[in-house]
Amino acid sequence: MAGETEITVVGNLTAEPELRFTPSGSAVANFTIASTPRTLDRQSGTWKDGEPLFLRCSLWNQQAENLAESLVRGSRVVARGTLRQRSYEKDGDKRTVVEMTVNEIGPSLRYATVKVQKAARSGAQDDAWTTPAGDPPF
Amino acid sequence: MAGETEITVVGNLTAEPELRFTPSGSAVANFTIASTPRTLDRQSGTWKDGEPLFLRCSLWNQQAENLAESLVRGSRVVARGTLRQRSYEKDGDKRTVVEMTVNEIGPSLRYATVKVQKAARSGAQDDAWTTPAGDPPF
Amino acid sequence: MAGETEITVVGNLTAEPELRFTPSGSAVANFTIASTPRTLDRQSGTWKDGEPLFLRCSLWNQQAENLAESLVRGSRVVARGTLRQRSYEKDGDKRTVVEMTVNEIGPSLRYATVKVQKAARSGAQDDAWTTPAGDPPF
Amino acid sequence: MAGETEITVVGNLTAEPELRFTPSGSAVANFTIASTPRTLDRQSGTWKDGEPLFLRCSLWNQQAENLAESLVRGSRVVARGTLRQRSYEKDGDKRTVVEMTVNEIGPSLRYATVKVQKAARSGAQDDAWTTPAGDPPF
Repeated sequence: MAGETEITVVGNLTAEPELRFTPSGSAVANFTIASTPRTLDRQSGTWKDGEPLFLRCSLWNQQAENLAESLVRGSRVVARGTLRQRSYEKDGDKRTVVEMTVNEIGPSLRYATVKVQKAARSGAQDDAWTTPAGDPPF
Repeated sequence: MAGETEITVVGNLTAEPELRFTPSGSAVANFTIASTPRTLDRQSGTWKDGEPLFLRCSLWNQQAENLAESLVRGSRVVARGTLRQRSYEKDGDKRTVVEMTVNEIGPSLRYATVKVQKAARSGAQDDAWTTPAGDPPF
Repeated sequence: MAGETEITVVGNLTAEPELRFTPSGSAVANFTIASTPRTLDRQSGTWKDGEPLFLRCSLWNQQAENLAESLVRGSRVVARGTLRQRSYEKDGDKRTVVEMTVNEIGPSLRYATVKVQKAARSGAQDDAWTTPAGDPPF
Repeated sequence: MAGETEITVVGNLTAEPELRFTPSGSAVANFTIASTPRTLDRQSGTWKDGEPLFLRCSLWNQQAENLAESLVRGSRVVARGTLRQRSYEKDGDKRTVVEMTVNEIGPSLRYATVKVQKAARSGAQDDAWTTPAGDPPF
């Protein structure tokens, strides 16, 4: 893909992720992230919550299974993906929703620590990380 | 701050994060994220690793402590922050580095599952998440 | 504001921007950007258009007036802003739309050249650019 | 490419763009964008300029020619691209710079109006925009 609209969202899962499998066996997780900006009230010097943004998300394959196994309602996440638009009919009325196709997500460390466990992997993957040749230039 | 240059990086920690404390007691973690893009070779139809980007990062306060406690060399992360520039002298020569001030980071779920544990919190924080009033509009 | 969801969109204006003024005299422009991703078809080696994303935008103050004066239906733009959610009722039915509050926008130079003209400015502005002290480190 | 580190920068050109041509005839423009964040001083309630970020950029093909023809030193721009790292030797010393490969750029309309002129195009291009079939859903 080229010319995608990339987006990064930080927020909390509004519910348990829903995990399903396509007929061909691919996993897909659906969930909603609520992201709440804050405004500084100059009078009082305190922060106030703004209007939250609720973004419906989908995530595919092994990462979807890992998410369902790791996170719950309320979990705070950092998610990167692309913004997409989807149209559907409801009661004979055409509607459009803007959604996020997540390509990478993880639990935020702002208020939590985690224990990372390697997921079982069914065979080699072409995008696994290996230490790049040579040392970083620092 | 306004007019910051925001950036999201997905990659792997090149080493154990270094955790230090300022004289006033604030925690700061320094680490480097290596992010490796991939190119599709149209001839062979396979992906090839591109030149990695090594980005030096700093992270502050409780999140820095949580990171040091949770992640290790090689951990894959999703990090959001702002790009900053810093100048220094070395051998009488002025040098400039571009670095990232991370404001939110978490371990990627692409190849791993995690167990989230709430970090001990020393008092109330103004930016803790609470369920927004009302239900999400879905 | 802190914790905003930043987004950058590249696409084309679907119509002439609509310029209005609030009772207090602030200008606001409303318009829609259509952003079309492309997919590489590996079989044929050609690019195909994906599903376009239509994003409703609002832009304020002098920049709104400058936009209305400079761009037309079809203009290709680069826009940076924040993603927001707005709820409204239609036929007794609650609906939610995701929109973009643009904070900076310009015509893309991909297929066009431009002649830049300074806009008349009504007095000093605190965010005008002046050459930073010293030379860039290159 | 996949897994690129995308970035959007708003700032001013520190000098006239340098336009060169490769032996095969491709145009490439090099320039530096200075981006200056601002901080709100809570005491005085005024904004103060932060440390500017100087980002070295390269831009290719027709867009490079359009940029060189349209913009000058001081022009304010909105630029989207990817962050890359490049290593080189200077006085027997290995150095590393972080640079931006721009894929779309335009003059900001914050303080200026523009007159858009279509650039002469040498033949069909696969990524030209055409009105998507059907109307936008608004």
